[in-house]
Amino acid sequence: MTRPTRVTVHAPATSANLGPGYDALGLALRLYNEFEVRLRDDDQLTVVVRGEGAGEVPLDERHLVVRALHEAFDRVGEKAPGLDLTCVNRVPHARGLGSSSSAIVGGVAAAAALLGRTGPDGGPDRDWIYRVAADIEGHPDNVAPCVYGGYTVAYREGKGWGAVSLPVDPRILPVVCVPDWRVSTAQARGLVPETVPHADAAFNAGRAALMTAAVCGHPEGLYAATRDRLHESYRAPAMPRTLDLVSDLREHGQLPAVVSGAGPTVLVLCSVPEGEAAPESPEIAGQVDSIRRRAGNDWDVRPLHVEPAGVWTPSPHP
Amino acid sequence: MTRPTRVTVHAPATSANLGPGYDALGLALRLYNEFEVRLRDDDQLTVVVRGEGAGEVPLDERHLVVRALHEAFDRVGEKAPGLDLTCVNRVPHARGLGSSSSAIVGGVAAAAALLGRTGPDGGPDRDWIYRVAADIEGHPDNVAPCVYGGYTVAYREGKGWGAVSLPVDPRILPVVCVPDWRVSTAQARGLVPETVPHADAAFNAGRAALMTAAVCGHPEGLYAATRDRLHESYRAPAMPRTLDLVSDLREHGQLPAVVSGAGPTVLVLCSVPEGEAAPESPEIAGQVDSIRRRAGNDWDVRPLHVEPAGVWTPSPHP
Repeated sequence: MTRPTRVTVHAPATSANLGPGYDALGLALRLYNEFEVRLRDDDQLTVVVRGEGAGEVPLDERHLVVRALHEAFDRVGEKAPGLDLTCVNRVPHARGLGSSSSAIVGGVAAAAALLGRTGPDGGPDRDWIYRVAADIEGHPDNVAPCVYGGYTVAYREGKGWGAVSLPVDPRILPVVCVPDWRVSTAQARGLVPETVPHADAAFNAGRAALMTAAVCGHPEGLYAATRDRLHESYRAPAMPRTLDLVSDLREHGQLPAVVSGAGPTVLVLCSVPEGEAAPESPEIAGQVDSIRRRAGNDWDVRPLHVEPAGVWTPSPHP
Repeated sequence: MTRPTRVTVHAPATSANLGPGYDALGLALRLYNEFEVRLRDDDQLTVVVRGEGAGEVPLDERHLVVRALHEAFDRVGEKAPGLDLTCVNRVPHARGLGSSSSAIVGGVAAAAALLGRTGPDGGPDRDWIYRVAADIEGHPDNVAPCVYGGYTVAYREGKGWGAVSLPVDPRILPVVCVPDWRVSTAQARGLVPETVPHADAAFNAGRAALMTAAVCGHPEGLYAATRDRLHESYRAPAMPRTLDLVSDLREHGQLPAVVSGAGPTVLVLCSVPEGEAAPESPEIAGQVDSIRRRAGNDWDVRPLHVEPAGVWTPSPHP
């Protein structure tokens, strides 16, 4: 096939570490970074960033999208071409919403499109994109939902990566509470202890198994399923206000709130017990109002649909 | 309603601790203990046991079915009646197949029937039976599948118990390898350490989440989903031959083998990748043959269907 000379990639925000699913469970959200890549006739590089991260990230070959794209070309033994990259970023940086994974997956997906690699359905070659992106990121829990969409269980298997993506029950609506302050993933990771009580490990294993059941057909189990003993409380010192909001939403609002990724964003999995789809439900609107009241003005409270299919390329330009 | 004076209860075998799901995940199997209870005119008690456990268990009020039945009557403030109990036991004792839970659930279910308690569908009042039986057993992972059938995620929530039961993918066929030696649950439990590496805890949480996905629609994930780091290897000293068989089936047979419950039985979740239901598949027959060859003569290798609905009472006798 003729390779395109210009591609646009939409790479979604993701929420990982979902409750008990440290380093494994993720959810894709309908909030996208948009990356446009145009091949150049020479080997030069230009990078333009609009929106989130503008003025903060390097506009050269150190830019994460460019690094990922270069790595993907390397994998197939091709020299990366000169290109003009334009990023329209909507995923907040360093908030626990997978902006790095979005950039990495976006870069690899752009490379896949430019290389003419497609999956069995003619769309993006998701398995290849996942493999390359997870290698670059070093852990798969944000990359998997970004690539495949929906609710994902991701894991390392030998030297490779595995993932299962499952559709999310339509009675569930994710709501994120994004603060205007940041927490570095490295700082948050440093607080997790070397060892934990066996009882806590068993607790999380049970709840993580329940999480899959709850997200995929049993939303009535979400509250119990989102309890965690492996990361949230350990990370409280790095983000006390995040943990305060999680506690308040859980204890007083009876809502299944968790820390999104390594924080400081809070994710609430709102749901209706039966019948209608969540976004149309007045009950959900009431839950969102309740979250807004509890969170107050320092948190940007945003209901977001689940992105069901993951990274996409609206129209490969020839 | 008129209370029956005679009830028969079929309480299934169960396999718990499934791989990464220590103390949480369980599976109901089509192998039943059958308990017949007839009310007497006086307050005497007779117990007859046939099959597994005959000649070993006490034939008085210490018998586990009787204790459970008495406890259930206590719960509702009624004095337990005199009765004649006949047990036809098919679930092997102390092998990790949930024979205790079968007896407890059987006793409570018999009491529920004698008390005229039914669930919303007119069948057994499963939620009540689960609650009472889990209180008696002290942990819910065998009780839940015994009561509800299918694949269950069971957990403690506050002072109560929660459970979700999910249908098992028809492409899966459980195969148990039962040895003629025993391991006590207490002995096996004593080998589990107080603390474990955080990495192992996170590993099991991810795999337990995967287990739900694999059992309920993605059997291709079963091999990865059945890996455990929280109990199996720690218990190896109590049952070296069990762990040897698990290793052999996994490493050389590429089959998703786990320790059933606290052992020494080995459970293999055979499956076909797509299409036909497992029991009719020649591919499954090949897997069962392979298990028989690897296990040798000291193991009773038995393919067992999943029991989809849990404890049942074929005909409430008026």
